[in-house]
This record gives sequence, C-alpha cells and structure tokens, in this order.
Amino acid sequence: MNELPLPGFAEVLAAAARIAPHATVTPVLRSRALDALTGASLHFKAEHLQRSGAFKFRGACNAVWALDVEHAGHGVVTHSSGNHGAALALAAHSRGIPCHVVVPEGAVAAKLANIERNHATLWRCAPTQAAREAECLRVQRETGATLVHPYTDARVIAGQGTAALELIRQAAVQLDVLVVPVGGGGLAAGSLLAMQQLLPHCELVLAEPAGAADTARSLAAGEHLIDFVPDTLCDGLRGALGAPNFALLRDAAQVISVEDADTVAAMRLIWQVMKQTVEPSSAITLAAVLAQPQRFAGRTVGLVLSGGNVDLDALPWGQA
Amino acid sequence: MNELPLPGFAEVLAAAARIAPHATVTPVLRSRALDALTGASLHFKAEHLQRSGAFKFRGACNAVWALDVEHAGHGVVTHSSGNHGAALALAAHSRGIPCHVVVPEGAVAAKLANIERNHATLWRCAPTQAAREAECLRVQRETGATLVHPYTDARVIAGQGTAALELIRQAAVQLDVLVVPVGGGGLAAGSLLAMQQLLPHCELVLAEPAGAADTARSLAAGEHLIDFVPDTLCDGLRGALGAPNFALLRDAAQVISVEDADTVAAMRLIWQVMKQTVEPSSAITLAAVLAQPQRFAGRTVGLVLSGGNVDLDALPWGQA
Repeated sequence: MNELPLPGFAEVLAAAARIAPHATVTPVLRSRALDALTGASLHFKAEHLQRSGAFKFRGACNAVWALDVEHAGHGVVTHSSGNHGAALALAAHSRGIPCHVVVPEGAVAAKLANIERNHATLWRCAPTQAAREAECLRVQRETGATLVHPYTDARVIAGQGTAALELIRQAAVQLDVLVVPVGGGGLAAGSLLAMQQLLPHCELVLAEPAGAADTARSLAAGEHLIDFVPDTLCDGLRGALGAPNFALLRDAAQVISVEDADTVAAMRLIWQVMKQTVEPSSAITLAAVLAQPQRFAGRTVGLVLSGGNVDLDALPWGQA
Repeated sequence: MNELPLPGFAEVLAAAARIAPHATVTPVLRSRALDALTGASLHFKAEHLQRSGAFKFRGACNAVWALDVEHAGHGVVTHSSGNHGAALALAAHSRGIPCHVVVPEGAVAAKLANIERNHATLWRCAPTQAAREAECLRVQRETGATLVHPYTDARVIAGQGTAALELIRQAAVQLDVLVVPVGGGGLAAGSLLAMQQLLPHCELVLAEPAGAADTARSLAAGEHLIDFVPDTLCDGLRGALGAPNFALLRDAAQVISVEDADTVAAMRLIWQVMKQTVEPSSAITLAAVLAQPQRFAGRTVGLVLSGGNVDLDALPWGQA
C-alpha cells in the first residue's frame, strides 16, 4: 500500500491556503479549573466548533478543492458512516459538486441524517469492509467520482494538519507536547507534518482507545499491524491506522492507551467544567493527560478536541 | 421597597473596571446554521463560559470588591441555592473574605457542591422565603456579614450590566435587539443601563418562562405583581422580579413568554449545533427568537447565554 504519496509540510501550507475561504478558524480554549487539576497549561484546539462539527472538514475540503475542474465535475465518493462522510458532503456542497457516501447497514441514524442534510447521495451496503469497498468501486465506475479516503488520502492528511498548524500559531506560548486522538491516523500524521517543521522539539502523543490499540502495537513492533476487532465507544477511532499514516508516524510519536471508562469521565469533565459538548473521541485526549499526570505536570500541552457530534439521546452515562 | 438606590450607567462602567482583574471576557459566538434557521444575525454572549459558569459572577464580584475594608472583613451572606450562591462564594474567595450561603432543604446536591467547592459556609433552612430571610438575618447579626441580594442589590445589577456592555463593544455590527432571560431581573435591568446609553435605539426583549410570567404581567399592568407560584424547569428564572428591577424595566422592555417544551427544544439545538452545554435559563433566549420568527428575521440580535450549570445526570430529554 506504500505507493500512496506521502504529503509534507508544503502540502499542509497549501491546504491551509486552499481551505481558508471555507473552514472556520476554531478558537483555542483554556480552563483554569483543568489547569489546576492537571498542574499543566492546557490549550484545547476546539475542532468540535469546526464546520460539520469535526476537524474532518479540513481534510475533506482540501481534497475537494484540490481537484481539477474536469474531475471535480464528476464528484467525490467515500465510505464512512461518521464525521468524514458528513464533512465530505459539506465540502462537496461548498464547491457545488456531487458527493456519494457508501454507508453500512446499521449505521447511526443521526449521523446519516447529518450526511443527507449536507446534500450527499447515500448508498447502503452490508457492514463489512469488503462490501464497503466493492460498493465504493461500483459508484466510482458508474459516476466517475473521485475516491476521497477518510485518512490515507494525502490531501486529507495535509488538510488535517492545518488544525495543528493553526494551534501552533494561535497559542501565545510554545507547546511542549501535543496530544491528538488516533484512529486511522489522518489527524495524527497531519499534525506531525506541521510540528516537525514549526516545533521540532514538541513531543507528539497519540491518545488511543485500549479497545482499538493497533497503533500502539504497530509503533511498538515497528511494523504495520492491522488485524484486530475494535471494541470502544469512541466511534471515531475504530478504524485501523492507515499505511501512509504508519509510514509517517513510526519513530515519531508515542501512544497512550486509554480505557473507555476514563474517556467517559474526561468527557463529563469537559461538558461540566468547559461547557463544551464534545464526543468521546475528543475527550480521550484529556483522559490521556489525566492517566499520566506526572508526564504532563508543569508542561504546556496542546490537545485537539476533534469533534462534537454526539447522540444526545444516548449519552454514555446514566440518567437520574 | 423603593428605598433601594437605583444604579445608572456610571455604576456599570465602574463595575466593569472593578471586576476586570477577576472576571472572564467571554466570547461572542456565532452559528451559520442558526442564522440560516432564524433568518437573523445572531450574536450569542457566552456567559456560560464566565467563571462559576454563569453571568452571576459579574454582579457578585462587583458587590464583593465594592465593600470597604472594614465591611469586607466580616464577609458576605446571601440566600441562593443556585448560581448566585456559587458566584458569591467564588467572588468572596477571590478577595479572601468569608462567605455564608443560606440554602433551603431539598436544594440540588450538585449546586450545593458547587457552592462548597468555592469555600463558602452553608446554612440550611426550611424551603420558604420567610425561613430564608430569617436565617440570613441571623447570620448577618452574628457575623456582621454584608447581605448581597441576588438581584435587587444595586452593585449586583450594575455588575450584571457589564455583560451587555461587553457584548455591545465586541459585536462587529450594531445590535437591533438584545434578548436576555428574566427571573429576578438583575441581568435585565443591568443590560438596560448599558443599552440606554450606548445603543438607545436597540430594543430590549426579556425571555420569561410561561410558568413564571410575573414580569410579563407586571409590565402589562404597570404595577409590580409578585404573587405567583413558579412552575418551570428554568431553575434560574423562578424568582419574582425585584422592586428596583421593576422600577428600571417598566416602560423600557418587552417580554416574550416561552413554554418549557420550546426552551428544551432550543437547548437541544444549542447543544447539537453550537456544541455548547447551556442550561435551560440560557436556551430560553433562542426559544424566544424561534417563537416569533417574523419579529427577528433580517435583524441583528444579541442573546445572552446566561449559564451552563446543568445536572448531566438529569437532562430534560429522554435517553435511548
């Protein structure tokens, strides 16, 4: 799979310029209470306030606007029942081109509604990786649409890197460490590209669910291990680390594995103290900091709150 | 009750200077989706991000720091089981003086914990207005503490006015109308003081629960009517309009009465679309705009999101 081109810092800069007319420059949030709790100086990049409710809009928008006019006319296609699907739909709509999203049977209704609201065409398939890819290929052949993979696409990785680029430029002080969630590794790899150039001494820590810890295993083994069955409520982090993502991240990042219970506790804390409605895949970054307090105390820490698309009717804690 | 002094614009400016070292300059939030839904240009003043989680810190902080050294040494006292109690406790702690809060039996445990976390002494009493006032008087007599009433105190009203003052200065465009929630009327009266001076043509609309509509009745009748039993889930808006608040607001504001079901729908919308964890008493402002779309369409509207202290274990909508 290593034939995919690896993006670099130049591609992140180009992406930033390309998406500037469409994406939101999200704020960096602080919390006295969470600084006191962790003994660290925390800088939260609020990507749950990004358009479509997640950082995914950055990569999708970059991919869509990087297409030449002829390809763009045939639209884009992807398979994703989550934030990438909705983000690609919104990005395609911003350019006025068709978007096709292949979704597995059984996907969350609220997320499908999100995709449809952004004017995409939904194609249903069986809930297997093979069925998804087959259906995607069929749509590609029949429509001429360009595939935009959720995290291995070089344009997507470069686009996701603009979140860290912005954070580094916005933070009034220099970050010692940046914590981002890792699933397929689009955000992680993109963040690395921005950091290596602008903050070469900043440490990259990936927060990964213990129930989908393929990145931790892959980085430890030094080889790309993707054979696992995810078991985590972080629905945005169930995918396996991509091949180009592994190629970029190996030897360049460390992983903290986080139990779901700790992620839910951190999510409650963010809702209660920061008043921000973030999804579990965002809260895992704070959970990682709270899991290893001595590692972060006294340091300036960036954390990417990756998204805020939550089903308000099914929260991961009980109701009185 | 009209012997209480009425604050003016000068007191709001003085309050802004007095609380500046302690209070947060909260951001003004925008939402493309909610602008599209309402046809208006909405500017949300994010007071749920204020210290203590509500605008109440402004008034409490102004009252605490306005005390001369001798009075300050004896501390402050109030009766409030809600946001004012926690705000006064935090404000007193910021000056290093004692704070006593009289709370009725049966108050929400989470809110009491909030008050205690801010180092106040709790005094319990029977859940009647008479019992609260008697206990407050006893604490005043025994400790020499200064009473800081949640909404009739002139220093509190002036402090609450700083939220509108900031919003008017922050908003890039001129507001046509400002919508604030009304309970006791501290925020409403303070907002009026700021607007009358800086934006004399801006309309003031008060959003009030239909189940606690004493302000609507009082303004319609032209006399202060306070005999009612509140029935609303907006726990911050159950108090009766205060006497000085009525004196300031009569002939100067209009009221929109909002059913709780509409407030809950607006609260969900703010959580889902804006990703902000606000309490019902905040969401009622958006509910008021949605209840009378023709009144707000095409206009530039300020809305104060007054607080974000929600019991996450008892949300006002069902769970799957």
